Amino acid sequence: MISNAAIDELAASLPGRVSTSPVDLTDYSRDQGPVVQTILPSAVIRAQSVEDVQALLGWATRHGVPVVSRGAGSGLSGGAHATTGSVILSLELMNRIVEINPVDETAVVEPGVINADLNAAVAEHGLMYAPDPASYRWSTIGGNVATNAGGLRCAKYGVTRDSVLALDVVLADGTLVSTGHRTFKGVAGYDLTALMTGSEGTLGVIVGITVRLRYLPRAVRTLAAFFDSFPAAAAGVLAIGRARVQPAILELLDGRTLEALDGAHGSDLRQRGGSLLLIRTDGFGAAAEAEAIRAALVGLGASVSDEGSEEADRLVDLRRHSRGDEVDDLYRVGEDVAVPKSQLVRYVAELEAMASRHDVRLKVVAHAGDGNLHPTFWVDRSEGERAQERLEEALDESVRCALDLGGTITGEHGVGQYKRRWLPWEQSPEILELQARVKQAFDPLGILNPGKAIVS
Amino acid sequence: MISNAAIDELAASLPGRVSTSPVDLTDYSRDQGPVVQTILPSAVIRAQSVEDVQALLGWATRHGVPVVSRGAGSGLSGGAHATTGSVILSLELMNRIVEINPVDETAVVEPGVINADLNAAVAEHGLMYAPDPASYRWSTIGGNVATNAGGLRCAKYGVTRDSVLALDVVLADGTLVSTGHRTFKGVAGYDLTALMTGSEGTLGVIVGITVRLRYLPRAVRTLAAFFDSFPAAAAGVLAIGRARVQPAILELLDGRTLEALDGAHGSDLRQRGGSLLLIRTDGFGAAAEAEAIRAALVGLGASVSDEGSEEADRLVDLRRHSRGDEVDDLYRVGEDVAVPKSQLVRYVAELEAMASRHDVRLKVVAHAGDGNLHPTFWVDRSEGERAQERLEEALDESVRCALDLGGTITGEHGVGQYKRRWLPWEQSPEILELQARVKQAFDPLGILNPGKAIVS
Repeated sequence: MISNAAIDELAASLPGRVSTSPVDLTDYSRDQGPVVQTILPSAVIRAQSVEDVQALLGWATRHGVPVVSRGAGSGLSGGAHATTGSVILSLELMNRIVEINPVDETAVVEPGVINADLNAAVAEHGLMYAPDPASYRWSTIGGNVATNAGGLRCAKYGVTRDSVLALDVVLADGTLVSTGHRTFKGVAGYDLTALMTGSEGTLGVIVGITVRLRYLPRAVRTLAAFFDSFPAAAAGVLAIGRARVQPAILELLDGRTLEALDGAHGSDLRQRGGSLLLIRTDGFGAAAEAEAIRAALVGLGASVSDEGSEEADRLVDLRRHSRGDEVDDLYRVGEDVAVPKSQLVRYVAELEAMASRHDVRLKVVAHAGDGNLHPTFWVDRSEGERAQERLEEALDESVRCALDLGGTITGEHGVGQYKRRWLPWEQSPEILELQARVKQAFDPLGILNPGKAIVS
Repeated sequence: MISNAAIDELAASLPGRVSTSPVDLTDYSRDQGPVVQTILPSAVIRAQSVEDVQALLGWATRHGVPVVSRGAGSGLSGGAHATTGSVILSLELMNRIVEINPVDETAVVEPGVINADLNAAVAEHGLMYAPDPASYRWSTIGGNVATNAGGLRCAKYGVTRDSVLALDVVLADGTLVSTGHRTFKGVAGYDLTALMTGSEGTLGVIVGITVRLRYLPRAVRTLAAFFDSFPAAAAGVLAIGRARVQPAILELLDGRTLEALDGAHGSDLRQRGGSLLLIRTDGFGAAAEAEAIRAALVGLGASVSDEGSEEADRLVDLRRHSRGDEVDDLYRVGEDVAVPKSQLVRYVAELEAMASRHDVRLKVVAHAGDGNLHPTFWVDRSEGERAQERLEEALDESVRCALDLGGTITGEHGVGQYKRRWLPWEQSPEILELQARVKQAFDPLGILNPGKAIVS
């Protein structure tokens, strides 16, 4: 553990930034992922500058103290959970938009900038920052980069990595480096920017981000298509693909998700169908794309919203926020696997069989355009540990099944702490070893977010 | 140097694959980048299978022999030039398209598959492989991945990295590993797929590639816009950006490039303008996008081709092949810098001043949509070494200037061997050191394409 003298040294060098108050230690001890064991950090450091981060990491290197970096703490895999003897580095106060360049179509931000704030600022230039995780109203760009966050618009616009051009990174020993380039293209040296993106604070601390912006679409069309059943809606996803139309958003909601939305909002979605597809097209072709999609879905028997109806837009907003205030714990876990699109129907049928076999409850939403599913399993809290075990068994089985169908254990949330047990199911010992060697190359003392993201 | 006994051992273990004929040693000694010093390899190995590659690398590890991998040898930076004591591993015979999955919109290929062959095979499914380097008719997907190749369609569809989902890689010691995932999204562990992409054979040998395919656009519109001058055409590029229209192709050709095309093809392009912009839009919005672009360019005084005219399409084909059979040498070097879009006009003005100052000739084409310029400098061969020195000075200055304007030394060709002298101008000693450590983690003996891609 860290000595009081070491904490005092840190507090003296970063006056006003270091807190050891019990409230802070508790509030910053975790993100929104499941907590298997609650551990409090030794201190919370709210950095206000790159120099603060450098000073902290210099101190951490001298004292051998693990550092867990975080943005808004909205992660869902425990990547920002405190670990034994660690301090938490919060980047939330480094929240300046440093530069918006509307001609180059780039922006430079500090890591604590909220995703939605960047989008609001660039919208007046006719631009958008494409990655839009469901948490976009409160999650930070730095956290989005650290987890290579996804979102609803990925199928058309790519994931966070595809919008990151350059990074300023403080290395484990406090050295500041810059990776990447300000141009859209650039292949000088190894792609350290991509390597850093999604590394969950285990290779360095991201303190500056240059992003590529996209054109804010002037035309947008949104369709809501109700189907009798989940398999019918999944067939709709494949029909849109067969029509070779690329929606910006393509979300699939099962009947139990519709019931949950009805319960929360007093709507009657579940009465209108057993499954819902929400489709948004954008750009100069938005209207023509929406018509092509409508034709394909009506042909399958779907009930598709009228053109000009505002309901579909409202439903997309509902979907974006359908996680609401639910925080995962040991009785309720939202999963994040991805499978090849062709396996969507089969995978959900397998999920339903598992839920029934293990007597757990299940609802499913999917970013269907890229095969990324968020099944949520839950059990009744009153049942206690036995129910937790059933939940764990169902989760393990659902992950194994996604892998068997050619999928991955995590489409967009990251491995963090919670999913490390599944990583060796997906990746070979040789790949795990390579990753450990990369980690060693960047962080020889192992002080950067140890026990996260990789297995070593 | 390698002993004859070692070569005999290799030939015995890979019967029919190993050549030491003088013709092969010469033909495979270089790619299309400038050769500073001709070095012949000790042998050429034409692998026919993953096992062949594994056997070769096992042998190379045992004997400490450098291995230079290559596809078609169409690289422009000397990344596949033979180095002292090396053997050349050609992957051109591993050219099977292993799988096309039109529902998942993916394909799996061996590294020797020609880019155009993959596109032809997937077109019948309404799909395309988006990355389209100018060499697409003869370069291989493996080489494209190894250099993270760009092309004309990058501004809209991204570079090679953005289409690569998973890789099979033989490591330096002969171990076969798989990186990435078959799904569009996936964030399990570090992004070794991106790290491998663009690493120019220095971290491993790519023996299998899973790519994401895109929808083949049904509608395409192409415009040719002649401007009085290069600055006027560059202003057209910025006007298209201001209109927030994303073309699939946006190529900028200067007057001397038009003269060169006229000379080669008997056309009269240069008479019609001092600079040419070629624009292609695609997808459901192609016609509307083309009209918005036409309006923006006519407003700037450009002479824009009529709708339905076939000339613009023909000019795009000409542009694609405008490198022709020209191979770079010490009297003629095609550069590959990129600058922020806002700096295009200024950069070309600087180039022209440099060319005049150093008495070298200059022509410029640019993938203007992403600020990637290909200036070609050349001098008269009859002038001998003095002229080579002037050329080198102009090149150095052009690279330094691109960096000063916020650019990069290589937008899409790669560092290879030829551009290593400029890498420390772009990247700090700390970044160079990190890359050397990554290299060390993957290739501790340093046998994979030493002296390329990075500086260590």
